[in-house]
Amino acid sequence: MVAESTPAPRADRPRRPSRRGRLPGRQDWSSWPHYQQAAAGFRGYWYPVAFSSRITNKPTAVTLLGERIMVMRDRGTVYALKDRCPHRGVPLSYGNQQFPGTVSCVYHGWTFDLRTGDLAAAITDGPNSPICGKVTQPTFETAERLGMVWLFVGDGEDAPPIDEQLPEELVGNAAVVGARIQPREGNWRFAAENGYDEGHAKYLHRTALWRLFKAMPVHNDTRIVKRGRWIYRVQDNQYWEADFPGLGRWSGKAWYKVDPTRHDKNKVNRNIGNTGGAAKVNEVIAAQDFPGFASISMPGVLRIAYPGFIHYEFYVPVDADNHLYVGVMVNFARGVATLPFYAKYLGAIRWLFHGQFSGQDKWMVEVTDAPPERLYRPDESLLQWRKLAEDVTEERVGRLKEQGITAEDGKPEVTR
Amino acid sequence: MVAESTPAPRADRPRRPSRRGRLPGRQDWSSWPHYQQAAAGFRGYWYPVAFSSRITNKPTAVTLLGERIMVMRDRGTVYALKDRCPHRGVPLSYGNQQFPGTVSCVYHGWTFDLRTGDLAAAITDGPNSPICGKVTQPTFETAERLGMVWLFVGDGEDAPPIDEQLPEELVGNAAVVGARIQPREGNWRFAAENGYDEGHAKYLHRTALWRLFKAMPVHNDTRIVKRGRWIYRVQDNQYWEADFPGLGRWSGKAWYKVDPTRHDKNKVNRNIGNTGGAAKVNEVIAAQDFPGFASISMPGVLRIAYPGFIHYEFYVPVDADNHLYVGVMVNFARGVATLPFYAKYLGAIRWLFHGQFSGQDKWMVEVTDAPPERLYRPDESLLQWRKLAEDVTEERVGRLKEQGITAEDGKPEVTR
Amino acid sequence: MVAESTPAPRADRPRRPSRRGRLPGRQDWSSWPHYQQAAAGFRGYWYPVAFSSRITNKPTAVTLLGERIMVMRDRGTVYALKDRCPHRGVPLSYGNQQFPGTVSCVYHGWTFDLRTGDLAAAITDGPNSPICGKVTQPTFETAERLGMVWLFVGDGEDAPPIDEQLPEELVGNAAVVGARIQPREGNWRFAAENGYDEGHAKYLHRTALWRLFKAMPVHNDTRIVKRGRWIYRVQDNQYWEADFPGLGRWSGKAWYKVDPTRHDKNKVNRNIGNTGGAAKVNEVIAAQDFPGFASISMPGVLRIAYPGFIHYEFYVPVDADNHLYVGVMVNFARGVATLPFYAKYLGAIRWLFHGQFSGQDKWMVEVTDAPPERLYRPDESLLQWRKLAEDVTEERVGRLKEQGITAEDGKPEVTR
Repeated sequence: MVAESTPAPRADRPRRPSRRGRLPGRQDWSSWPHYQQAAAGFRGYWYPVAFSSRITNKPTAVTLLGERIMVMRDRGTVYALKDRCPHRGVPLSYGNQQFPGTVSCVYHGWTFDLRTGDLAAAITDGPNSPICGKVTQPTFETAERLGMVWLFVGDGEDAPPIDEQLPEELVGNAAVVGARIQPREGNWRFAAENGYDEGHAKYLHRTALWRLFKAMPVHNDTRIVKRGRWIYRVQDNQYWEADFPGLGRWSGKAWYKVDPTRHDKNKVNRNIGNTGGAAKVNEVIAAQDFPGFASISMPGVLRIAYPGFIHYEFYVPVDADNHLYVGVMVNFARGVATLPFYAKYLGAIRWLFHGQFSGQDKWMVEVTDAPPERLYRPDESLLQWRKLAEDVTEERVGRLKEQGITAEDGKPEVTR
Repeated sequence: MVAESTPAPRADRPRRPSRRGRLPGRQDWSSWPHYQQAAAGFRGYWYPVAFSSRITNKPTAVTLLGERIMVMRDRGTVYALKDRCPHRGVPLSYGNQQFPGTVSCVYHGWTFDLRTGDLAAAITDGPNSPICGKVTQPTFETAERLGMVWLFVGDGEDAPPIDEQLPEELVGNAAVVGARIQPREGNWRFAAENGYDEGHAKYLHRTALWRLFKAMPVHNDTRIVKRGRWIYRVQDNQYWEADFPGLGRWSGKAWYKVDPTRHDKNKVNRNIGNTGGAAKVNEVIAAQDFPGFASISMPGVLRIAYPGFIHYEFYVPVDADNHLYVGVMVNFARGVATLPFYAKYLGAIRWLFHGQFSGQDKWMVEVTDAPPERLYRPDESLLQWRKLAEDVTEERVGRLKEQGITAEDGKPEVTR
Repeated sequence: MVAESTPAPRADRPRRPSRRGRLPGRQDWSSWPHYQQAAAGFRGYWYPVAFSSRITNKPTAVTLLGERIMVMRDRGTVYALKDRCPHRGVPLSYGNQQFPGTVSCVYHGWTFDLRTGDLAAAITDGPNSPICGKVTQPTFETAERLGMVWLFVGDGEDAPPIDEQLPEELVGNAAVVGARIQPREGNWRFAAENGYDEGHAKYLHRTALWRLFKAMPVHNDTRIVKRGRWIYRVQDNQYWEADFPGLGRWSGKAWYKVDPTRHDKNKVNRNIGNTGGAAKVNEVIAAQDFPGFASISMPGVLRIAYPGFIHYEFYVPVDADNHLYVGVMVNFARGVATLPFYAKYLGAIRWLFHGQFSGQDKWMVEVTDAPPERLYRPDESLLQWRKLAEDVTEERVGRLKEQGITAEDGKPEVTR
């Protein structure tokens, strides 16, 4: 840089005070001890980890709640074993299959029964190897739903049926699914809190292409309503413009955006309804009688009931610093009615909603850094979610205790 | 590699002794406790952080003395706030301006008054948000000098006028400036010590293009003289060649270099004087009556008075492992006389001096690793600089104590 | 992904049990305390660090047993000094030579006598610098063998003659050498254990191109025999096929591989014998009377006696996480008989054996992660190697104690 420099300060610039600030707030999450401890996720749940089509008879390595797990398919069924050969610590996922129903470690050919985890053979020690029958590899229960493989990570208790954990409307109804699985940086709790957060959508996402032609309110009156396993955000009033004293007017509306105070909701819904299966979706939503648009349940499942489709987000803990974003768009069309659904998903939702819109959330989740934190009125949604997580976990810990099992949420950082 | 190998050692090679060595020396800097503690910089000073032209109404993030700070310009004036939204820890520098005089956090639209740091609005909670008035973001004083933005980092005391800290000759005189700001690895103290170090220039820099046609002495007789805020290196004798017993002759001269013992200093200075404004520079230097060529003052400002221009280096602590190198060439020309100055700066000094020459220093600062250290006679310059830093800081600590303020040098590593 | 989802699980898929597993085993190596401590290598040995041709009068930096060492050649002889100038911690290896028999630090020209480590001059303080005679840089003994530079790292004791540590057959016989030096990740002990491991070769390496036309046994009956400084693996029986109960038959044979139960070993050896010097090799091997094919000695020297050549691996500890793989193929041909050896090495062994085959080992050494570990019968080879290391070190520690020296295995992680 080259420049001329005037030696004296300009008189018209006010001297800036240096102020130490007033930043009181929550320094930790000790009022939710289970939640605070669950940096690497809550144990006792089913989590989606991969598309079913990706799990073949070649082993795949996944990390879930800090545990390294080998997943592979054998004659149609998916199996999951701890991904560390107990012999010398080499990942089993580097191995392959030498005998049906087994996986063999690449290093010395230790061969494990996929179903039981038992060491079935140590090839390089011959058929009479005395070690057989003395080693059992830990296994995980698996399931397949919504085109994805799910694993149960618990503390030794029996896994509940996965259908008890899935959103109710997905169990009895055949669904068409558009999904995106994306590894993301940042703690899973920031992702879940971001998803259910009442406050940010109207500000952060106002510039998203997904919202390009839709006005966003400036602020809302919101209540959180608990029903069953879910808590719902109920919007009582929406304010499309506001005057901030001393600052000016601020609006989520624009000339090129649909005016929400005037447009005919039914008409819009009818239009969306023309994309396949929307009528069935609206019927399902009506049957469920959701009290609000957005809901969340353990262990981090967000549900947004749009007219015409339902959007889910599963925040899958990988470890304390990473999670898997699983975005799922569901519709209940059948037959040819699925075609417009696919067209809408692949032509718009995948790029605008699961893509750029959700990418704004990704960015925030990466840089959120709390506690310390200073919450405000719209964070009631966060507080209720944390309370839900805390209460449900307290209940689980008690239930396990009766079975003589100690819950280990947050214990293992990445295990070997 | 393929090779033939002779089995026996050659008799003419002396067996190498294995010796544990004698490496006494200074194991720490505990005799300068303030200096030792100030790994991330001395608090209580103004530091340049960016060219003025780079600070616009879009926020910029800087790290200074381990503190993350958002800097932006509003209607001509530069403001600086702690770069962490107290709500959820997202950097304020990701945000932008929604109302004049404010900056809004990108996530939920928390809006801070730039001058006071007060939370002026939480957009997504509407105009009646009860949190307004309860949160104040820490602020930093700012100034603009020499075409750069300067921030004051202190411990809560009032900032002294920046002109009291600038080199005296820069306050009363209009200057033309050629400057380079470069982020560099390595602790700022190694950069400052390298800059003022009496010993290295003659050896490390003997190969610099900047010195290509100038002989360098082998060694000097040097005294350190304190005058005001500055300590000066005074060269009493320069030795251009030396005979090292048992080793041989060593010289900083070469046939293609000007012989310093013969050339006419006045002639050279006259030549340099032809580049714009040198006469004024020499006049300024004469007025200041510098007792020596190189001087340093707190908090790490080096000044080299060349005939024809003055070169400054500001070693700005970013954190304990990084600093900002700010190299500034100043001349006091005016009008058309500035043109040869710019030509000389852009055509030579920027590349040879602020570039390759200074790049040799950069390399050393990156790999210097002390304490432990074993100082030698020319390190008197280092010892006096450390003593200056220690004495001045001791005085500041006492001054703050009287105001009930605890100095926090070196306390925060990077803050959130 | 878009997919249709069937809501109910298929009845033909067995529910997977979740099992916690049975993974008893060794949790640490505390039964071999010296071995456990020697993560960064055993002190008291000679180690190869570079090809002789690479060590010139320009300094080279190496890290050995966590110590940073500068190596350079002066008038034919190799010297090694601690690679940290005691003045300000800059690596001496950045410097160069200003006077014969010395190296000068790049920063201030501190000049060390290569043979003694004494500070011979501090150039920038002139010939009368009072620091000369007060500083001695630690030195290391050096040697050249097999076309490589070797350094001795001890605890201050006199280095034993390197020939006492080299494999005996390499001391009295002129050898031709094909060698590869490769920096590798992973602890040196995993490399040594992998090299001597009886179990993995037959399984991991069955797919190596080096073994493409050679059947591998499924399992062996193996004994470990100690003779002098070496322990040997003696194969009593080899089993080329095996039936694993409940799993099936497994074989290391294939139609395109030589049938080891039928081929004429003498014929093969005669063929290999045609490549230069094999007769001499077989003569040397016979003279040594090796009881087995593979042997290992301290501090991690593997020897495989193939018919026609001998292969060595030196596992050189760099630090706790890195080692140098030094693979050496040796033959005792002379004159024109060396030509077929070079042809065989450069045309095949370098790529197939020191390359891809050894690359499989590299992969395993990188990911081995023990303890915890669960050993099996073939790991007797590992156990005996650890016992050898433990016994030899126990003896050395006692020997040093009598000299008043404390052994420091594993003490310094990377030193400055």
